[in-house]
Amino acid sequence: MNFLLLNGPNLNLLGKREPGIYGSESLDSIEKNLLELSEKEGILLDCFQSNSEGLLVDRIHQSIGKTDAILINAGAYTHTSIALRDALLSADTPYIEIHLSNTHSREGFRHKSLLADKAIGVISGFGPMSYYLAFQGAVDYLRKK
Amino acid sequence: MNFLLLNGPNLNLLGKREPGIYGSESLDSIEKNLLELSEKEGILLDCFQSNSEGLLVDRIHQSIGKTDAILINAGAYTHTSIALRDALLSADTPYIEIHLSNTHSREGFRHKSLLADKAIGVISGFGPMSYYLAFQGAVDYLRKK
Amino acid sequence: MNFLLLNGPNLNLLGKREPGIYGSESLDSIEKNLLELSEKEGILLDCFQSNSEGLLVDRIHQSIGKTDAILINAGAYTHTSIALRDALLSADTPYIEIHLSNTHSREGFRHKSLLADKAIGVISGFGPMSYYLAFQGAVDYLRKK
Amino acid sequence: MNFLLLNGPNLNLLGKREPGIYGSESLDSIEKNLLELSEKEGILLDCFQSNSEGLLVDRIHQSIGKTDAILINAGAYTHTSIALRDALLSADTPYIEIHLSNTHSREGFRHKSLLADKAIGVISGFGPMSYYLAFQGAVDYLRKK
Amino acid sequence: MNFLLLNGPNLNLLGKREPGIYGSESLDSIEKNLLELSEKEGILLDCFQSNSEGLLVDRIHQSIGKTDAILINAGAYTHTSIALRDALLSADTPYIEIHLSNTHSREGFRHKSLLADKAIGVISGFGPMSYYLAFQGAVDYLRKK
Amino acid sequence: MNFLLLNGPNLNLLGKREPGIYGSESLDSIEKNLLELSEKEGILLDCFQSNSEGLLVDRIHQSIGKTDAILINAGAYTHTSIALRDALLSADTPYIEIHLSNTHSREGFRHKSLLADKAIGVISGFGPMSYYLAFQGAVDYLRKK
Amino acid sequence: MNFLLLNGPNLNLLGKREPGIYGSESLDSIEKNLLELSEKEGILLDCFQSNSEGLLVDRIHQSIGKTDAILINAGAYTHTSIALRDALLSADTPYIEIHLSNTHSREGFRHKSLLADKAIGVISGFGPMSYYLAFQGAVDYLRKK
Amino acid sequence: MNFLLLNGPNLNLLGKREPGIYGSESLDSIEKNLLELSEKEGILLDCFQSNSEGLLVDRIHQSIGKTDAILINAGAYTHTSIALRDALLSADTPYIEIHLSNTHSREGFRHKSLLADKAIGVISGFGPMSYYLAFQGAVDYLRKK
Amino acid sequence: MNFLLLNGPNLNLLGKREPGIYGSESLDSIEKNLLELSEKEGILLDCFQSNSEGLLVDRIHQSIGKTDAILINAGAYTHTSIALRDALLSADTPYIEIHLSNTHSREGFRHKSLLADKAIGVISGFGPMSYYLAFQGAVDYLRKK
Amino acid sequence: MNFLLLNGPNLNLLGKREPGIYGSESLDSIEKNLLELSEKEGILLDCFQSNSEGLLVDRIHQSIGKTDAILINAGAYTHTSIALRDALLSADTPYIEIHLSNTHSREGFRHKSLLADKAIGVISGFGPMSYYLAFQGAVDYLRKK
Amino acid sequence: MNFLLLNGPNLNLLGKREPGIYGSESLDSIEKNLLELSEKEGILLDCFQSNSEGLLVDRIHQSIGKTDAILINAGAYTHTSIALRDALLSADTPYIEIHLSNTHSREGFRHKSLLADKAIGVISGFGPMSYYLAFQGAVDYLRKK
Amino acid sequence: MNFLLLNGPNLNLLGKREPGIYGSESLDSIEKNLLELSEKEGILLDCFQSNSEGLLVDRIHQSIGKTDAILINAGAYTHTSIALRDALLSADTPYIEIHLSNTHSREGFRHKSLLADKAIGVISGFGPMSYYLAFQGAVDYLRKK
Repeated sequence: MNFLLLNGPNLNLLGKREPGIYGSESLDSIEKNLLELSEKEGILLDCFQSNSEGLLVDRIHQSIGKTDAILINAGAYTHTSIALRDALLSADTPYIEIHLSNTHSREGFRHKSLLADKAIGVISGFGPMSYYLAFQGAVDYLRKK
Repeated sequence: MNFLLLNGPNLNLLGKREPGIYGSESLDSIEKNLLELSEKEGILLDCFQSNSEGLLVDRIHQSIGKTDAILINAGAYTHTSIALRDALLSADTPYIEIHLSNTHSREGFRHKSLLADKAIGVISGFGPMSYYLAFQGAVDYLRKK
Repeated sequence: MNFLLLNGPNLNLLGKREPGIYGSESLDSIEKNLLELSEKEGILLDCFQSNSEGLLVDRIHQSIGKTDAILINAGAYTHTSIALRDALLSADTPYIEIHLSNTHSREGFRHKSLLADKAIGVISGFGPMSYYLAFQGAVDYLRKK
Repeated sequence: MNFLLLNGPNLNLLGKREPGIYGSESLDSIEKNLLELSEKEGILLDCFQSNSEGLLVDRIHQSIGKTDAILINAGAYTHTSIALRDALLSADTPYIEIHLSNTHSREGFRHKSLLADKAIGVISGFGPMSYYLAFQGAVDYLRKK
Repeated sequence: MNFLLLNGPNLNLLGKREPGIYGSESLDSIEKNLLELSEKEGILLDCFQSNSEGLLVDRIHQSIGKTDAILINAGAYTHTSIALRDALLSADTPYIEIHLSNTHSREGFRHKSLLADKAIGVISGFGPMSYYLAFQGAVDYLRKK
Repeated sequence: MNFLLLNGPNLNLLGKREPGIYGSESLDSIEKNLLELSEKEGILLDCFQSNSEGLLVDRIHQSIGKTDAILINAGAYTHTSIALRDALLSADTPYIEIHLSNTHSREGFRHKSLLADKAIGVISGFGPMSYYLAFQGAVDYLRKK
Repeated sequence: MNFLLLNGPNLNLLGKREPGIYGSESLDSIEKNLLELSEKEGILLDCFQSNSEGLLVDRIHQSIGKTDAILINAGAYTHTSIALRDALLSADTPYIEIHLSNTHSREGFRHKSLLADKAIGVISGFGPMSYYLAFQGAVDYLRKK
Repeated sequence: MNFLLLNGPNLNLLGKREPGIYGSESLDSIEKNLLELSEKEGILLDCFQSNSEGLLVDRIHQSIGKTDAILINAGAYTHTSIALRDALLSADTPYIEIHLSNTHSREGFRHKSLLADKAIGVISGFGPMSYYLAFQGAVDYLRKK
Repeated sequence: MNFLLLNGPNLNLLGKREPGIYGSESLDSIEKNLLELSEKEGILLDCFQSNSEGLLVDRIHQSIGKTDAILINAGAYTHTSIALRDALLSADTPYIEIHLSNTHSREGFRHKSLLADKAIGVISGFGPMSYYLAFQGAVDYLRKK
Repeated sequence: MNFLLLNGPNLNLLGKREPGIYGSESLDSIEKNLLELSEKEGILLDCFQSNSEGLLVDRIHQSIGKTDAILINAGAYTHTSIALRDALLSADTPYIEIHLSNTHSREGFRHKSLLADKAIGVISGFGPMSYYLAFQGAVDYLRKK
Repeated sequence: MNFLLLNGPNLNLLGKREPGIYGSESLDSIEKNLLELSEKEGILLDCFQSNSEGLLVDRIHQSIGKTDAILINAGAYTHTSIALRDALLSADTPYIEIHLSNTHSREGFRHKSLLADKAIGVISGFGPMSYYLAFQGAVDYLRKK
Repeated sequence: MNFLLLNGPNLNLLGKREPGIYGSESLDSIEKNLLELSEKEGILLDCFQSNSEGLLVDRIHQSIGKTDAILINAGAYTHTSIALRDALLSADTPYIEIHLSNTHSREGFRHKSLLADKAIGVISGFGPMSYYLAFQGAVDYLRKK
């Protein structure tokens, strides 16, 4: 099984800025932990972060046919990018939407996701733990299928 | 540590009706699995389901001072009950909002939650797995605090 | 054939209060007339009224597998209860939405029904006659199926 | 007693097109059945169908002073014609709004009726049976007055 | 100078129905009074009433090149007919919008006019006097031009 | 008979500024013309203009019991002043709403009047002629009453 | 004179939870104070609190014909319960809407009351004092009638 | 303790006009009664009424530093004046919003208050009694502080 | 193959009025050009224009079973006629929506089409060329099917 | 060159109240600084503050023909006064909209300005510095013209 | 004559993914066909596709002064990119908006285009044929100019 | 002190295209002028322009810890980019929002800024002068802090 972990804009700053909202664990650390978890489960995990909507779309295109599930924290693009939605739908790979913070507690424009209705599921608010729960959700989803 | 699992209206039918939307595992089975998980973690888990908004409010009141986290799938009341929101806020117990189905893929009136903005986090779309992920999320949340 | 007649909040007052809006026939009288009609048609009719959303949900659950059609005047819950909608959809029993008054002539919040789009049909405005017409509509619907 | 049955645009195609939505009974057949019912009740029934908003308005004008109730399935004009509403209000004849399909299950622009709030009542979703129920509703309404 | 007086749906009933809203003067009488006024001013006045949107459009087309001003009470079509708006704009004849009743005191859907923003002016609420005022307004407008 | 002519903010500039929108006749000239018209009709006309909402309210209060009709061009206050509306309703004097320009052709915030629904009628778009038409409308209205 | 004091969901927690919003006086204490006030005024006061919408509706039904005024703090149901509104209107007993906190300073969904427009009046923001003021308001209202 | 009673536009007409909405007690009489009440409580009460938004703002400015509570019935300005809101916030004096009528039963534009969310509380619907209740509410509020 | 070309209200004026918006080619000329194009492609083309919504509906009914594609410029009815939509859906003939002008550059009420979502496609803004492109689009569509 | 500095309601309190929002510099001090700046630039500067909408309108009228630019901080009237907008447009003097605070960070009703779209430009958020920047902006604007 | 063909995000997948929505012809094939068409017409055609909003903006900038028409299928950016709109307006090159699918039949957020109102015209729903029709539309448009 | 000047999409065309909206000064010239101003003030100024949202986010990240203020004209991204907002908030550097044109006079979608509420302040409408004013505003802001 192959998984792709996608992180959108500003998530490269994780752990370095605004720990009150996003926690103090860095993206590197989260990726390392997920790679360990993957290894245990016999899953190949690919990680990619970009601040560019276009590069994220490109990366999804490259994954087509080689990926069983996408774990995606699209950050701000969750709320503004129809291009990402279209890329995910074209890829036709099951995906899980992840948020570190509870988006419902924040500004109104973060309450609407352009990705959520086509996702397997959504996990938000648990900080880095959101990623680990999403990983398990994806494994469980694919095993049951 | 003490947890309370609350299930709202129609969730007693779980596994019996509309498996296309809600899956085929019964609420009994989910509760049994969660009790096992709890035991392993040394957590006391209390389970309650009701179709009545008032009884759910009553149950939250009873839990005050004896509960460290509430796992709640409020079902239809997620979208209509300010009374449940007020009960949870009065209890001042951290809670996690759970949904079996991905509410974003369903009718418009299910897109707004009256509980989400005050929850630790929200997990939706993973079927019964939503409960197990929420359980882990709660354990992780409390251990870190 | 088995029918279930459900009446929601405040309909126990029928004939006693606000005859200008709801007419002067009591719920007892309507139920008696419907029971007579049922007998003639060889239909077993069960009647239930409650002011509690939860008890109405419970009653729908009990009817599962034993009921061919539900005639429901959900009163105020027509406009506020997603829980009733979910119960009716879980039951998967054809149902008809009934209103004594013409809801379109009343306050704006009565113009939207949470039950109507999944009903066989809707009858409103005919006073107690709404029930008798709904009864015939249900008989006709089931005979044709 | 004199009744007028009005059918609006596209209802001349009844039974010929889109039976999945509108059923397979033709307008001719419905009119014949209603004429029989009328005869039994000692009622004179006039039937008129037109695809033209203006001709429907004209027909309502002609009925003034000679009609005790109007049964109207205004089809698409239900949602767009203030002129029909004005004609019905000018005529000051009690009328019943009829729909073959359940308009609440269809496109959003069919959820609002420009006629409903001034009608005796509304019956929708029962296919041709909607007409027969409306006929009985009208008879009952006038007998009680 | 040539004027065209256009009256839309249901205005043929003027004086006969709903005098509480529309007054007791008939359209015939209003037209006669306006013809007298026209004669005095040396204006040729043409009068046309129809319940059909299409015929009103046709009539406006016929008037092109032969009419200096249109006085129009489009009745219900004021609020629903873009076709009439387009016809008036194509004709490029100055026009005045007339209403017998004060549309602002009535149903919400009468508050928006599809003709008003391109009219010379709007006169509403004065009963038949609205026509006579509009006539004077048109004469004054053309004399000043 | 006593009439009161009220002009709101910026109407003292009439004829001096923005003739493209408001015409080139001054308020003085309009008032003179109206006084002449009044004299002919045996009506006492009082004229008042103010840029202050409060003074306009005061002036309406003073007119109570001594005025048969108010002709009011409230200018910008038409769209923002509930206080003026309340003053007019308290005075219980019939009033006519006047606009020089066609408010429907201008900014969206000029499309809603807070005075119109309680006025006898509204006249807009005829420039100074709007006042003379309103004067006649008022005379006609009171003579008929 | 007979009064009924109704308290809705979560108000049983008064004084025990969230004193920052609701103050530190318990519901018991408020009821005791009101009973004393009642006694002085020669009024029989009945007190009832429930977290269940249905039981509150039931209680209002029981009060019909035996109650001169209802003092109601419907809590969260103020904003969601048409059933309570219908019960109060069926009872046809004058009622006063009470809020401990100033609902206008809180979440948007607390700004709309389904009960207020049919109440004698509304008192909000004074903590327990809201009840005592409402009591006086009711006495004054009934004495004047 | 010093109190300021502010009354906004049209309230000088109290008792003289529209008694059906506002009651038959004059503002003079209300002020006299409140002065008596004040005297008993050892409070200095200042009364001011104006139809001018600007003068009301001026009056609030003058009260700064000399006033412990403001009782304000801003009338129509409640719904349109951000300037009054700003003046009250600048003054930083606790204030109570008063309405004679129940604003929720009236036009939609009276349902939104620009002052309410920053007030101690709101009292509406009790006629002149609203003032006396507000007075007591203010006394109680300040005594408790 | 048989095609039907339908033109709605005011399109008979094409080339005669408002060339700035609609161009200077007449409808006759467009129809002639399309007839030539049809002949070359071996297609029978029928042309119909009407200002009447009802007649357009009638014409669509007549075409049922004899037409392979409808090219329709419904003009103003594009935005107001559900009756035309229903007629086209009943006919179950593929159709293409045509506009001479770019409707997106015009008034807001022209931005919503009641026909577009069920059309094969929409072509707008090319003047008469819109018709020729639509013709080719229809030929291509049917050849590929 | 002549400039007019206009300050609206509550700005006379500048520096005295709510320094957290508006800073601690008084309006006197700002005016003095601007007068110095003006002198250096050879500009005559007139300053006017009022809490009254009407007096601000009057002051703009007086400035007509004698003023090259208006610097206006209309305070609360920015969001509510169409009368001020009309006065500025009648004056046809270029003007700059100034705000001490960043209005976008405050209540929703401060996000819409009725003056901004016709201003040269808008400067907000810099405290008293907003005035000095606006002054320079006006000088630059007029020099370039 | 020089044309530029621009394709936005995910259109590189054309023909490879979701043929049900977008057809089975690849972008390469469409570009080849258009190049052949161009050659025949003596037009130089440049083709560019990118998933990056910024690169599409860059490409439009490069085309300035060397391009007579732009054919653009901006894909998802049609609905979200004001930057593309600004680039096209800066370039001041006539452009045509193209869509393979009928955007009106899809999700609500695809119904609004940020490019359409400034385009020559829009063609949507014809699959690859949309490009060929747009090409002809552009040729026709430029030849006529 | 270090400043960063950021310019978003299409601003590289400044002075070359659409001078009617954006003026005739090039970005190069503006940057040169600002560099001179900076030198005089002893400030290091870094300039960056990009058409890519992602590169602008990247550039903000690089500036973290080395920049005291950001002057940003985000162009079209002002209205669509939550990613830029998040980058600016993560950087926690004070920033000023700049616009050449008065965005309030343009299309509705330019009236909402996703950056403004967290900026120190906003300056719009002064052409290149907006940059120089913003520069001074930033200097003043930092000196006062």
